[in-house]
Amino acid sequence: MLTYDLEQRGNKTLYEYLYECIRSDILNGRLRPNEKLPSKRTLAKNMDISIKTVENAYEQLLVEGYVRAEEKRGYFVNGVEGREGFGKPSVGPAGGKTMAEQEKEEWFADFTSNYKVYEKFPFSTWAKIMRETLSYHDTELLEMVPTQGIYPLRREIAKHLYEFRGMEVSPQQIIVGAGTEYLYGRLIQLLGRDGIYALENPGYLKMTRLYKNHGLSYRYVDIDGQGICPDALRESGANVAHVSPGHHFPVGFVMPVTRRQELLEWAGEERGRYIIEDDYDSEFRLNAKPVPAMQTLDAEHRVIYLNTFARTLFPSVRIGYMVLPPKLLERYQETVSFYSCSVSAFEQYTLASFMEKGYFERHIRRVKLYYKEKRDELLGELKQSSLWGKCRMIEENAGTRFLLRVDTPLTDSQIKWCAGQRGLNLSCLSEYCRGQVDGMEGILLISYGDIPKERMKEAVKRLTAIFE
Amino acid sequence: MLTYDLEQRGNKTLYEYLYECIRSDILNGRLRPNEKLPSKRTLAKNMDISIKTVENAYEQLLVEGYVRAEEKRGYFVNGVEGREGFGKPSVGPAGGKTMAEQEKEEWFADFTSNYKVYEKFPFSTWAKIMRETLSYHDTELLEMVPTQGIYPLRREIAKHLYEFRGMEVSPQQIIVGAGTEYLYGRLIQLLGRDGIYALENPGYLKMTRLYKNHGLSYRYVDIDGQGICPDALRESGANVAHVSPGHHFPVGFVMPVTRRQELLEWAGEERGRYIIEDDYDSEFRLNAKPVPAMQTLDAEHRVIYLNTFARTLFPSVRIGYMVLPPKLLERYQETVSFYSCSVSAFEQYTLASFMEKGYFERHIRRVKLYYKEKRDELLGELKQSSLWGKCRMIEENAGTRFLLRVDTPLTDSQIKWCAGQRGLNLSCLSEYCRGQVDGMEGILLISYGDIPKERMKEAVKRLTAIFE
Repeated sequence: MLTYDLEQRGNKTLYEYLYECIRSDILNGRLRPNEKLPSKRTLAKNMDISIKTVENAYEQLLVEGYVRAEEKRGYFVNGVEGREGFGKPSVGPAGGKTMAEQEKEEWFADFTSNYKVYEKFPFSTWAKIMRETLSYHDTELLEMVPTQGIYPLRREIAKHLYEFRGMEVSPQQIIVGAGTEYLYGRLIQLLGRDGIYALENPGYLKMTRLYKNHGLSYRYVDIDGQGICPDALRESGANVAHVSPGHHFPVGFVMPVTRRQELLEWAGEERGRYIIEDDYDSEFRLNAKPVPAMQTLDAEHRVIYLNTFARTLFPSVRIGYMVLPPKLLERYQETVSFYSCSVSAFEQYTLASFMEKGYFERHIRRVKLYYKEKRDELLGELKQSSLWGKCRMIEENAGTRFLLRVDTPLTDSQIKWCAGQRGLNLSCLSEYCRGQVDGMEGILLISYGDIPKERMKEAVKRLTAIFE
Repeated sequence: MLTYDLEQRGNKTLYEYLYECIRSDILNGRLRPNEKLPSKRTLAKNMDISIKTVENAYEQLLVEGYVRAEEKRGYFVNGVEGREGFGKPSVGPAGGKTMAEQEKEEWFADFTSNYKVYEKFPFSTWAKIMRETLSYHDTELLEMVPTQGIYPLRREIAKHLYEFRGMEVSPQQIIVGAGTEYLYGRLIQLLGRDGIYALENPGYLKMTRLYKNHGLSYRYVDIDGQGICPDALRESGANVAHVSPGHHFPVGFVMPVTRRQELLEWAGEERGRYIIEDDYDSEFRLNAKPVPAMQTLDAEHRVIYLNTFARTLFPSVRIGYMVLPPKLLERYQETVSFYSCSVSAFEQYTLASFMEKGYFERHIRRVKLYYKEKRDELLGELKQSSLWGKCRMIEENAGTRFLLRVDTPLTDSQIKWCAGQRGLNLSCLSEYCRGQVDGMEGILLISYGDIPKERMKEAVKRLTAIFE
């Protein structure tokens, strides 16, 4: 009987993983041509997963021609030579790419990812609230949602921002949308296409692709230890600065108030200058008191605040929000409010209730604890290693990662290659830099959220071995 | 005790309507300053609504300063003179606009809307499947969704397109997103910003705003009785034609195959020419056999097919999809596939299951029947009226509306004004035209979905009176 270790599936969904296992067994010959696959029910029972999961995996194999379905008999493996004729029409090299081909490499330890933290999410509570939402709101859930999102959710977000980020904003200023990528799209339409956007260097690379895809002009502006440099910002000619004062990505520092004031001063110098405050990940900083958002200092209404729930809840939730200053809100109403709200009423009501009942706050506390424990485990191992004497930690309170400056003659590509040889996925700060990277080499980005407890010791041992 | 007739709430949600009723009673003095509002529980019980609904309405009144909350005593009406000092900071005229101010006018009969059809949606079935989805998939629902959407949903969409639109496409060609507006945004990034887009004239006005907001060049190209004119299209210099061959908006005709072929020929003449097939509303045509999609004729891979579930399910569901031809799919993978999928896993699994179990198909049949009944009622009344001798029906099988060409000396604005005086909301074809409207005047767009049965007779009487 087929059986696979579901613990090995990493970031994949159950059905994707199952599909890939069977596909690989067909390709490597473990499953032979014309062999019958177990019935969906049997396999589901055997592996303790839902029939639905097996069904989806079988369907995918069917569509791609690895198996065939014979009426009333079940699923059979196709011979390799027979495979060409099966399946839906090919759609070219990229479109025809199977999930298996798109899969990520398997690492012994992945120091670049904090994906698995979603496993801490209280799914049963969320499911309970979903059920309550269905009963409470009934057919109300079908009705058109106001373009900025339902009022109860915007009210809860306003409360959250007040309590956790020190922001006093009205629910009327809040716009809910299907993730921050979506909201950036709206924001760009609002700020106009003629602007020049300044991006932090080093910084969040995905942003570059987003601005590029929107056909916008952008400039990289170097950061120092405090954030984007105001003089460099002036020189860049940009009128919109995209910054992450609460939690710089990837470095992790908080922008001090003096630098925030300098940036606000820059914004006030000319009409049409704005600051986009990207507050992604700021919830997880480990120091006791979070720093208020930059928006709270914004007397001249130049700051647009953005954040997402995909990071604080779980990856598949597509809800983000932005807070507009009054003048932009007026322009929003005039120019882009004709769009429909892009998040379903059901999920908005569920989230509003989840927040209102205090579960959101509790969850954030729990996740911070999770990160703290992981970090302590990792640090414990690091301090006992010979690597500890050769490195220096940077931004150790950033919460989801820290930086490790290592004293080494190796280049960053050599470090990554050596890591890869040892089954470690590692990234370096220089990967997030544009242009000159002098002084940026030898700085490792250490995310610890996805490394299993039982592998921590060995992971640090392998990491240490790179620099020996 | 406060009590309001919830039947009168029209398109509003319960809490919005309740909020507006109370607010209006405060403004008109029925509720006096310092008067205590009933407790949430009592009002909920009295009106047979959930406490949550009352709570949301009270909260909104509180935020806007119409009432105040006194600890352990309850909610009290604020005096008008005292209102200025209350509530969250004002956010300017547009942002501060209350729901009441944004509300639509109340009509005796609205001939411009088919909104209420969502009341036919089998909500209890949907809710049941949502509950099943929660149990079946469990924490799988939290995981990152593939950028094009979950496979089972794309598989169901491919099946649906095969069965109802005659399209043979692979699930790999399908991209699921948070509504068509969202997908157009992606598509524009894919086709490039340098293109010139051709829009049907008359046509769907929202599209103009969308292209304008994206900073794109577009041209209006006149339609004749068959669709967009190929010669005019050539003259326009456009390279992307945005058309609705399955169900023209607002006219409602189907583009004949000859015209489809002419358009495909136009697309084949030059590299980089594409046709966007907007298939919105095509599901509800009343003739027995639906016409296959234009995409089915597309041998040269120039057609991009788009459709949405917001129209076929209910307005608050934000799920649309597009089908890319193979070459564009490759480009999609290279350039815009870095975006996260914008629809939550939960709603995707729910919809996939709803479709798989045949509910979607059944629902579409039911809605077609609903439209047919409404249309028969309306036609029955029209045929008995004196208006019938002065008008001619156009596109009577369009399903969700028909056109009525009336022999009248009145201009379209006079018609609309007279209709408004009689409590009728009416729109004319000329409103959807750009430039010259010769020969377009005197054509009424008659949507019948939102007119209650008991008002149909009177509505037709009032309509007739305009032209007497």
